[in-house]
Amino acid sequence: MSQNGYHVAVVGATGAVGQQMLRTLEEKNFPVSKLKVLSSARSAGSKIQFNGTEYTVEEATPESFEGVQIALFSAGGSVSKALAPEAVKRGAIVVDNTSAFRMDETVPLVVPEVNEEDLKSHNGIIANPNCSTIQMVVALEPIRQALGLTKVVVSTYQAVSGAGQAAIEELHRQTKEIAEGNTVEPSILPVKSAEKHYQIAYNAIPQIDVFTENGFTYEEMKMINETKKIMHMPELHVSATCVRLPVVTGHSESVYIEVEDTSKSVDDIRVLLSGAPGVTLQDNPAEQLYPMPALAEGKPDVFVGRIRQDLDAPNGFHLWVVSDNLLKGAAWNSVQIAESLVKLKLV
Amino acid sequence: MSQNGYHVAVVGATGAVGQQMLRTLEEKNFPVSKLKVLSSARSAGSKIQFNGTEYTVEEATPESFEGVQIALFSAGGSVSKALAPEAVKRGAIVVDNTSAFRMDETVPLVVPEVNEEDLKSHNGIIANPNCSTIQMVVALEPIRQALGLTKVVVSTYQAVSGAGQAAIEELHRQTKEIAEGNTVEPSILPVKSAEKHYQIAYNAIPQIDVFTENGFTYEEMKMINETKKIMHMPELHVSATCVRLPVVTGHSESVYIEVEDTSKSVDDIRVLLSGAPGVTLQDNPAEQLYPMPALAEGKPDVFVGRIRQDLDAPNGFHLWVVSDNLLKGAAWNSVQIAESLVKLKLV
Repeated sequence: MSQNGYHVAVVGATGAVGQQMLRTLEEKNFPVSKLKVLSSARSAGSKIQFNGTEYTVEEATPESFEGVQIALFSAGGSVSKALAPEAVKRGAIVVDNTSAFRMDETVPLVVPEVNEEDLKSHNGIIANPNCSTIQMVVALEPIRQALGLTKVVVSTYQAVSGAGQAAIEELHRQTKEIAEGNTVEPSILPVKSAEKHYQIAYNAIPQIDVFTENGFTYEEMKMINETKKIMHMPELHVSATCVRLPVVTGHSESVYIEVEDTSKSVDDIRVLLSGAPGVTLQDNPAEQLYPMPALAEGKPDVFVGRIRQDLDAPNGFHLWVVSDNLLKGAAWNSVQIAESLVKLKLV
Repeated sequence: MSQNGYHVAVVGATGAVGQQMLRTLEEKNFPVSKLKVLSSARSAGSKIQFNGTEYTVEEATPESFEGVQIALFSAGGSVSKALAPEAVKRGAIVVDNTSAFRMDETVPLVVPEVNEEDLKSHNGIIANPNCSTIQMVVALEPIRQALGLTKVVVSTYQAVSGAGQAAIEELHRQTKEIAEGNTVEPSILPVKSAEKHYQIAYNAIPQIDVFTENGFTYEEMKMINETKKIMHMPELHVSATCVRLPVVTGHSESVYIEVEDTSKSVDDIRVLLSGAPGVTLQDNPAEQLYPMPALAEGKPDVFVGRIRQDLDAPNGFHLWVVSDNLLKGAAWNSVQIAESLVKLKLV
């Protein structure tokens, strides 16, 4: 740490997550002594405000990282693959929000509430998990610790902002076109590079990312594999169905779990979650209190409610987990990792 | 059957489902010799077209059913409770689309593709199941028959039209208000009579119908109990999480099942479903082919896709099931029941 903070770079500073990263660094008063806002050549030259100072966005190159101590990457997997090693070579610690290094065995994949200790084994790069994975493991970790966890079946209800600014604009454009009685011409969702695009307004698209050979999408395989890695449970049974919805911000998840301990009730789960780090319990059916994306937007917490004991399996529970996918799902967790690095004196 | 058809009454003829019932009777060329369109006093007097003839909506009273042979009810549970027995007393067979009689042991609960034979034991009233139940059991029955079924975990993605015309209008009104930067003032969803109402535009509400004492909603308990009754499997493990979305028409379901037979593959399931009654298989990841509500609207089929074998349980499979909740979920299934009554010479 220099006298008054760290030299920080944000790569992908003009994107939806990059902007949230800058806002989160401000809100959390992260000690930034010097800031570089980097992007592709296309966005270079645009202006960004940070803590009252105007910064000019520069094109990210290997040389951009000279002197940088912490680099937060969120500019797509190919940018991270090309530039994260260059940043590390120049002495920076990279917190990468893409999927480029998540399953690399030499790279810790970290959600501070769950496996902060894994940061100690880093080799320069730390991966930030997929948004839908992060909120789920934050909700499940207190249960896993107390009751043991054997099975997870999750169905997601994901917001378009997870697919970037262009997807948000596409949802709004389609909604307007439908209201005016015009034809909708999708070009972004479900996957920009895919052959077919589908209407997202007033629809539900059961495809996020492209398909893998086993019929699951990459998004679904990310949830499965990342959950096992973060929880250090390669043997955990996890399955996922990931669905994109006409919601701007806030991912929701219907999660069915089975635990080892068969003696616990819904009230026990509520007690476990009510004091858990990063979790806000919103669970009172009598008051119609439960998490919803419209209420979660702009908040860093992972909201959990609708906790029910399965009617057939005494070790089965159902939960409804909601969080702002741009915050805890991305920017907030990345900055939390940076804070943990400072706290553990790893930077 | 009179010389050229049946004397049919539609109760709730001005509602979203009632209108679909009339359209479905037309489209299926159901033999209607005489038609009565009935409603509450509020809607009485309005005009309805059927097969090119204009009908005047009359207030439903016990006397309305004199001479009626088949009465299709979709005007709310209290109307059915009051008037269905009156219709039966006057010689009509009632096909009731409300939840009033569904769990009555003396009332068959019928999805013709699954348990048409149950019609034979009717005592005047036949119940049409909940929309989200119908599409799921149509998709699961061929699998149950061939492989045995032991466990169902379903998470739903339900359209607002399931909550009636007022909910559709509320979604459109809120969408417009948000586009104009105005405040949203919800008054219908999740449950009109409930104390709190929540925004549905760009949101996901994990409450459909009111809560029961075990923490599940009535909608969830309907799916659980109705599935067991229709399939004659009181021992089946079923659990449900029901969620309302900003989709106008078309319910989607993420369904995880476990079967008895542990030797089957995704291809076996596809073969079972591709020829199944009422089912249209839409399952080709390579072509991005899968069911979506925007594509299902206006079609009577139950669409099934995203079929995947669970990665941990050899007897576990995941499916994505979509259908038009106003058609197969309500009007279409009711008219199908009337057709089955004719076919089985029960009317």
